[in-house]
Amino acid sequence: MKKCKIDAYSILERIRSQKPIVHHLTNWVTIYDCANIVKVLGGSPVMAHAKEEAAQMVGIASSLVLNIGTLTPEFVEAMKIAAKAANKKKIPVVLDVCGAGATDLRDKKSFELIEETRIDIIKGNASEIARIAGEDVSTKGVDAASVDLDMHEAARRLALRTRSVVVVTGEVDIVTCGVTTYAVENGHPLMSSLVGTGCMAASVIGACAAVERDLALAATAGLVCFEIASELAAKSSRGPASFKESMFDHLYQMGKEPLNKLQRVQCE
Amino acid sequence: MKKCKIDAYSILERIRSQKPIVHHLTNWVTIYDCANIVKVLGGSPVMAHAKEEAAQMVGIASSLVLNIGTLTPEFVEAMKIAAKAANKKKIPVVLDVCGAGATDLRDKKSFELIEETRIDIIKGNASEIARIAGEDVSTKGVDAASVDLDMHEAARRLALRTRSVVVVTGEVDIVTCGVTTYAVENGHPLMSSLVGTGCMAASVIGACAAVERDLALAATAGLVCFEIASELAAKSSRGPASFKESMFDHLYQMGKEPLNKLQRVQCE
Amino acid sequence: MKKCKIDAYSILERIRSQKPIVHHLTNWVTIYDCANIVKVLGGSPVMAHAKEEAAQMVGIASSLVLNIGTLTPEFVEAMKIAAKAANKKKIPVVLDVCGAGATDLRDKKSFELIEETRIDIIKGNASEIARIAGEDVSTKGVDAASVDLDMHEAARRLALRTRSVVVVTGEVDIVTCGVTTYAVENGHPLMSSLVGTGCMAASVIGACAAVERDLALAATAGLVCFEIASELAAKSSRGPASFKESMFDHLYQMGKEPLNKLQRVQCE
Repeated sequence: MKKCKIDAYSILERIRSQKPIVHHLTNWVTIYDCANIVKVLGGSPVMAHAKEEAAQMVGIASSLVLNIGTLTPEFVEAMKIAAKAANKKKIPVVLDVCGAGATDLRDKKSFELIEETRIDIIKGNASEIARIAGEDVSTKGVDAASVDLDMHEAARRLALRTRSVVVVTGEVDIVTCGVTTYAVENGHPLMSSLVGTGCMAASVIGACAAVERDLALAATAGLVCFEIASELAAKSSRGPASFKESMFDHLYQMGKEPLNKLQRVQCE
Repeated sequence: MKKCKIDAYSILERIRSQKPIVHHLTNWVTIYDCANIVKVLGGSPVMAHAKEEAAQMVGIASSLVLNIGTLTPEFVEAMKIAAKAANKKKIPVVLDVCGAGATDLRDKKSFELIEETRIDIIKGNASEIARIAGEDVSTKGVDAASVDLDMHEAARRLALRTRSVVVVTGEVDIVTCGVTTYAVENGHPLMSSLVGTGCMAASVIGACAAVERDLALAATAGLVCFEIASELAAKSSRGPASFKESMFDHLYQMGKEPLNKLQRVQCE
Repeated sequence: MKKCKIDAYSILERIRSQKPIVHHLTNWVTIYDCANIVKVLGGSPVMAHAKEEAAQMVGIASSLVLNIGTLTPEFVEAMKIAAKAANKKKIPVVLDVCGAGATDLRDKKSFELIEETRIDIIKGNASEIARIAGEDVSTKGVDAASVDLDMHEAARRLALRTRSVVVVTGEVDIVTCGVTTYAVENGHPLMSSLVGTGCMAASVIGACAAVERDLALAATAGLVCFEIASELAAKSSRGPASFKESMFDHLYQMGKEPLNKLQRVQCE
């Protein structure tokens, strides 16, 4: 891999000017932060899970984010309806396989979503993606478990097989469409002392995918924005809560210079 | 319209001394902020949506706030049970028609609530209220869309037809019972960069309606308190997240002087 | 009762090193804060309520927290499945009887949970615990009502009858197994101007119970950590919102010295 430069700011600018609607069917724990991070980026979040309106709401959206963090079988049925509507409308669908590997239900429903609908971006931490990739690993709840695996390779194989962009979050994030692979080295350890950073990342990626057709680039740009905001926030934080507040403020104010100067991206 | 002065502080004082219970059936995105804003005002929020207890919980409440932000048909059934219990007990019912116009389900369920139960205060942004008023407009999700319409007139007609107070939030908020109309010019642009300010406004109005029988005055006073807190908060904010924290703190500490000095209300 | 010293820091250290998974079936209002307070303590929160996975998720957890704040009958069925799995695995179960006394549903479901499963720690405010103890009191929603009752005695009787540790939160918290009783005098009035402090206390207790077998000591240590963080936070707060942020930061950074120096615990 070699150092590369991506124009994250142009994607951020498009979110700010187009204000895309990012529709979510997400979990009840971090739903507010998922909505709010899309808002501070400049987008317009919608969260609606009734199966009676899931498809119609997709009609006004520019991307769809699914997150199985607090799934039930009924909730996943609504996700499928929304995803099929999004597929038909040809807007990108992001799936956060939150907690995959922790229970059979999560694995089964993740596989169903990937098989029965078109998922454009599959996102998870190393152990979640390893499970979705069919590797045998154990997950420690929803928190990142380091897995004994070449995640670059596993992600690439999963991407080629599903024809999806695969995003593996961690100290170094991997984004791959199977051909081009980005590694994002930005971020700050405080992110892992705060609930919801993974879910927020999926929403950020959903907002970027709403305005940029190159989905690997969109996902990478989203992670760069989010993680540079985190780095800036960490400088003046006294703990995870002040860090969180500052991270949202920094993302809202994010300018071109820090995005260019602080990004640490490699690609191949 | 001419400048007028309302005694918002006396309503705030009554909330602080009476600590009314404000019962909510609201959405899963902003439920915490809705509860917390009632709390920092001095009231006592309850959120309970099981149809088995919705009516009994109304028995200890002084007002009821309904919000269809993440509605399902079953959830709306519980809202109807709660609203009918509130009607019987003669405590005010606030309905936030969150996202009306975005899907048929939202329109249908809003109309059902207004027809099958007595709604004392109908609240929404311009496009939502336009839809409820029967005007043909398109909604951009849950975010305010400016509509090409005389909202004063549309709100007044809706108020007269439903015998409800109608609240239209926006840069200038309109509150009307059909006869008296208030326009609240307070507020700050940062409010629209934060998820949930509309929902919070409904909860603030619910808390005020719990202690003041003149519901147009109650709604106006609530908006004045909320929006002056926002103006004060904006002065020291670095973005939407620090703004939000400061807004809650200012609302908690709100004194008589800023409420009298900073309010910009017109009426006719 | 006489002054006593507990080693809360050693319990905190064990949470930080063992990072126990604390599984929750909790309410939709404060679910994020419940998760996040476990995280800043050093634990790993999981929130999963589908009856299809509730038992399996217990398989990776070290304790279980149940909270009936926004209960439905179906939700309580999932709680029972989770609790029975936790009983079988012999990990501690905390039940927050949030709002007991407010409706028949809450009373009935609390009693069912206590009778049909083994609850290791029952937690509530004075009026909630009085109701669970079979005393005739009226609850003012989910906010603490002072009750005309010797809560020490009522808690002790309830603990002996149920063989559970009973926690009564309030200005002075009571923790009793029926034989040993602790009284925690820490805390700050701002805690009662913020939604969710009671729910967060249950999650903190759940995290401590995951690493300490003496459950009365675990609950007491949890309250000491939480309430000393609150005292430290209150010093620099401008209202409930800045207080909350600072409280989370202080809990994250909590060291041995304040826990030893500031604790005000009595026992007998």
